[in-house]
Amino acid sequence: MNTFGRIFKISIFGESHGPAVGVTIDGVKPGLSLQLDDFTHDISRRKSGAKGTTPRIEDDVPEIISGWFNGFTTGAPLTIIFRNANTQSGDYERIKDLPRPGHADFVAHQKFNGYNDYRGGGHFSGRLTLALVAAGVIAKKVIEPINVSANLISVGGSSDIEGKISKALESRDSVGGIVECIANNLPVGLGEPFFDSVESLISHIVFAVPAIKGIEFGSGFSAAAMTGSQHNDKFLDAQGRTSTNNAGGISGGITNGNELVFRVAVKPTSSIGIPQQTVNMVNGKTENLDIKGRHDACIALRVPVVIEAVTAIVLADLSEEL
Amino acid sequence: MNTFGRIFKISIFGESHGPAVGVTIDGVKPGLSLQLDDFTHDISRRKSGAKGTTPRIEDDVPEIISGWFNGFTTGAPLTIIFRNANTQSGDYERIKDLPRPGHADFVAHQKFNGYNDYRGGGHFSGRLTLALVAAGVIAKKVIEPINVSANLISVGGSSDIEGKISKALESRDSVGGIVECIANNLPVGLGEPFFDSVESLISHIVFAVPAIKGIEFGSGFSAAAMTGSQHNDKFLDAQGRTSTNNAGGISGGITNGNELVFRVAVKPTSSIGIPQQTVNMVNGKTENLDIKGRHDACIALRVPVVIEAVTAIVLADLSEEL
Amino acid sequence: MNTFGRIFKISIFGESHGPAVGVTIDGVKPGLSLQLDDFTHDISRRKSGAKGTTPRIEDDVPEIISGWFNGFTTGAPLTIIFRNANTQSGDYERIKDLPRPGHADFVAHQKFNGYNDYRGGGHFSGRLTLALVAAGVIAKKVIEPINVSANLISVGGSSDIEGKISKALESRDSVGGIVECIANNLPVGLGEPFFDSVESLISHIVFAVPAIKGIEFGSGFSAAAMTGSQHNDKFLDAQGRTSTNNAGGISGGITNGNELVFRVAVKPTSSIGIPQQTVNMVNGKTENLDIKGRHDACIALRVPVVIEAVTAIVLADLSEEL
Amino acid sequence: MNTFGRIFKISIFGESHGPAVGVTIDGVKPGLSLQLDDFTHDISRRKSGAKGTTPRIEDDVPEIISGWFNGFTTGAPLTIIFRNANTQSGDYERIKDLPRPGHADFVAHQKFNGYNDYRGGGHFSGRLTLALVAAGVIAKKVIEPINVSANLISVGGSSDIEGKISKALESRDSVGGIVECIANNLPVGLGEPFFDSVESLISHIVFAVPAIKGIEFGSGFSAAAMTGSQHNDKFLDAQGRTSTNNAGGISGGITNGNELVFRVAVKPTSSIGIPQQTVNMVNGKTENLDIKGRHDACIALRVPVVIEAVTAIVLADLSEEL
Repeated sequence: MNTFGRIFKISIFGESHGPAVGVTIDGVKPGLSLQLDDFTHDISRRKSGAKGTTPRIEDDVPEIISGWFNGFTTGAPLTIIFRNANTQSGDYERIKDLPRPGHADFVAHQKFNGYNDYRGGGHFSGRLTLALVAAGVIAKKVIEPINVSANLISVGGSSDIEGKISKALESRDSVGGIVECIANNLPVGLGEPFFDSVESLISHIVFAVPAIKGIEFGSGFSAAAMTGSQHNDKFLDAQGRTSTNNAGGISGGITNGNELVFRVAVKPTSSIGIPQQTVNMVNGKTENLDIKGRHDACIALRVPVVIEAVTAIVLADLSEEL
Repeated sequence: MNTFGRIFKISIFGESHGPAVGVTIDGVKPGLSLQLDDFTHDISRRKSGAKGTTPRIEDDVPEIISGWFNGFTTGAPLTIIFRNANTQSGDYERIKDLPRPGHADFVAHQKFNGYNDYRGGGHFSGRLTLALVAAGVIAKKVIEPINVSANLISVGGSSDIEGKISKALESRDSVGGIVECIANNLPVGLGEPFFDSVESLISHIVFAVPAIKGIEFGSGFSAAAMTGSQHNDKFLDAQGRTSTNNAGGISGGITNGNELVFRVAVKPTSSIGIPQQTVNMVNGKTENLDIKGRHDACIALRVPVVIEAVTAIVLADLSEEL
Repeated sequence: MNTFGRIFKISIFGESHGPAVGVTIDGVKPGLSLQLDDFTHDISRRKSGAKGTTPRIEDDVPEIISGWFNGFTTGAPLTIIFRNANTQSGDYERIKDLPRPGHADFVAHQKFNGYNDYRGGGHFSGRLTLALVAAGVIAKKVIEPINVSANLISVGGSSDIEGKISKALESRDSVGGIVECIANNLPVGLGEPFFDSVESLISHIVFAVPAIKGIEFGSGFSAAAMTGSQHNDKFLDAQGRTSTNNAGGISGGITNGNELVFRVAVKPTSSIGIPQQTVNMVNGKTENLDIKGRHDACIALRVPVVIEAVTAIVLADLSEEL
Repeated sequence: MNTFGRIFKISIFGESHGPAVGVTIDGVKPGLSLQLDDFTHDISRRKSGAKGTTPRIEDDVPEIISGWFNGFTTGAPLTIIFRNANTQSGDYERIKDLPRPGHADFVAHQKFNGYNDYRGGGHFSGRLTLALVAAGVIAKKVIEPINVSANLISVGGSSDIEGKISKALESRDSVGGIVECIANNLPVGLGEPFFDSVESLISHIVFAVPAIKGIEFGSGFSAAAMTGSQHNDKFLDAQGRTSTNNAGGISGGITNGNELVFRVAVKPTSSIGIPQQTVNMVNGKTENLDIKGRHDACIALRVPVVIEAVTAIVLADLSEEL
């Protein structure tokens, strides 16, 4: 459902065009220093505004309504909400029977018997990642001195990221990309064999981020073409440091003290300015759909801070257990 | 920890060289017809014996010790155990202070303060996948008429699978591969937005399988190089069928009625016949390690039935909720 | 932590004197008709105002910030918040180092290292039961036609409830009581053997309600003095109806089709107008404490609607599974 | 379902007349010294044999099939099974359509569509408490130096326990009792406000024990007849010790450093030697039932060690979190 984690546990709620989106974090330790300004940097990294991002701009000012007292976390559930202000729901009324290709409109309508809030994708909207980023800000405090950093390393199959985005904008199309995430200063021993392996937990929450199509750790898909003698990381010392890092920092599901490294594939934004074929869910007829809503030419631009957030959330959950 | 699922819930236990490995499945509906023979086919697919698999051969006869009465499931927890018989623990005594590169030996020793059963990888062993396969047999019954099928589609970067394995065997090395899994006859509506997305749940359990380095759904990593107009799947009818299947059968985390398709990367077996550099965990000195334990030249050969099993387990859990 | 339930899952948050208290309910089925007025009746039953209840009166107007669209639930998480307005936090500043006998002040300070919001009990406050009552309003809709009804059946050991409360008010003291809860129209089969027995789940959430000291089902504590021939309920028909109901409607943890009956003991309100001995947490010295905060002479008066709510929450969770 | 706990997590399985009953404990810390003899004392306390207990005597020898190596726990899931040997299933074949009053036969048949193992109560049998006792042995090790002790304090409403049992035996009837449980050496701070209150968790698992009809903490039901000035426990020092212990050692759901005290009501054994009226589930006709199975005249005699076990299990789960 909408909850993730065992000890540092987050629950997200909200819709793109409803009153608010938000998150409750249970299991935050008491005494973490926390100011509203602490959210500013990561929230602005997620925000639109740059070339290739949607013109819908929200203030995204967090309101902390529980679990915070005198500038510190209290140990009680921490709830943070963000009011939705800049909604243009009329854009969606017009196309509510026409599922947008690549979006969740069709499955949402089927699964929720037509009661889903269809405006802007409703609860399926990427706007919910704002709640993840807010939770990530807290998680990053919890896991200090572990450091998590994600970057967009290619767009449209190329490292000329700028060029690919310009081209997509010109053709009113969109384009995908790859984000790499690295975590440093990890202790040996986070994670469990099998179901609570670090890969299991990270991939679980990474695929909760809209538009992700794949994930690979360390050597990833290239491992399939390697031999064991190439792939095995040689031990250098009794702290477990290795000469190579094909393991991506994880052995048997557990952090091994080397850098945690993984990459995710982000699909091109589903909303594009080019008319597309769809089917009217009411009368079953094929129609041409011209999406007028505001959207990103390359959603991957806004993904790195979200990937950092969800990674920190997993590590916070695992760290609390140590 | 060692439990997965919310309604169809599996818990695995056991070690490679302990008395047994096994699984308890809670939430199995009563009245499923079940005979011991029902396990034979999938267990034999997981078994070694073929070229490229380990010479350790176990009988792998399931013993059902609860939840089964008069040839049917009862609705009570179903526990299945497999006795370990063909263990040669002496192989491991010799190298217990020498963590094998690519294995979990080092992290297991650190995390469990040296109390872990180090023989054959202990609880980290791939032998635990036998418990997953057994649970998969039950899950496949639960999800009928949904059909899940996985196949090895490449080894060592080539579709000449036979050739790559022979080469690895000759050089006492090992080699990786890619497994593709497809599920048919899925209803629209399995899964949830965000944390219980089908991708989240499948990737979670897939990364519980040892040796998996990456997973991608539908277009997967190739999506990162595509444009939205290429990637969006056009709707063909009001049942949600689409002309292409870049979504891999999942939209917004929810099955959309098309084929579920994903691929996983399997690393080369970590145990190889070639001496490797490691570090003695007791005295911190570098040593050369010559693994004499029995192992697979290409563990990917035995992975497809495991991937089928874990996929069926996820779908059983989601189906029970419908 | 602060989450309860498996399918109909509630998470509560907030503090007595913080910005708000609230609840997120995940797993609400889509299409339940819901208006703000639907909360009025139960919220007013929980409210103070009657003789014996606290003079702190809040408006308690629910604000639904997610999961609600066009007058229906959407199937997405439903979040309801209540702003705190009528707080007089100064009352608590004066006594923040003096734990009030019978309250959680001492343990809260110890467990949360002094970072807890101590005003009005903070997150431990009975005000959080407002969130439970709001969730109960939704749960009651989910379980229709099951009907849940709780009543105060004794106060201060007597059925002259009015008299006992007057006496407590006169002496600036408080008094306890017993609440009985009955649920009708239950199907056979809710609940599970052992850990998800109906008694386990109801008692779990009932003891989450502040001031509850005991719970008994059907014959309850009187069963300890009975013989089997007296206690066993005779079957009357193949629908499972019985001549007596010592079982309280539950056999082997599972509803048996008869009325569900249980009683809970409510302790006297801890805050009283009489000075009490306490210990200063800073200097360790004994002090006399004169509580000036507003409080109830008999909190049991306000408990029945809370007990109804939590019972409905359990039944909603179990019903969804059927 | 059949799993309890968050960190020290137990899963039970098995049937009275199936091959075995057992338990898997996940989250046991590595390095606990453990010998098979460690189980002997508690298992013998649960065993029958004394006056008033059933003549069915099982060896109850534990077999540890995972998570145990060289005399220590490994940190991997610990699975313990007990083979059923002394079963006389023929006793039950005769009455399989006749639900025994006070037992779960009727609901089990309805809930599991007749596929339940009806012999000796199947999965509903009190024999499953053997698995709880085994888990309790481990839990008691985890929580050291916390000490848990439960005793039978009354039978049939009297402290002349011996007399009441003799009388029940003579009349081929059965009789109920009250068990009190006390835990010492508890730290301040175990438990959480609301849903993970110590009372919530203990009552949850206590009601998983068959035959329990009520539970009360500290003052319990007598609190309902008291005033606040009588009930509030005065603080004696800054460690939180109080002059009285009406709280039963728990404030706001959290251990307060005083003795944890609670009492449970145990109903008379449902199986009695006196013929009883029941209804044939196949033809709906009223019949007289003469139970020939072996049973206890006072099951409460065997309950104390089970109550200790489940209490230790809760405390182990909470302690691991500290």
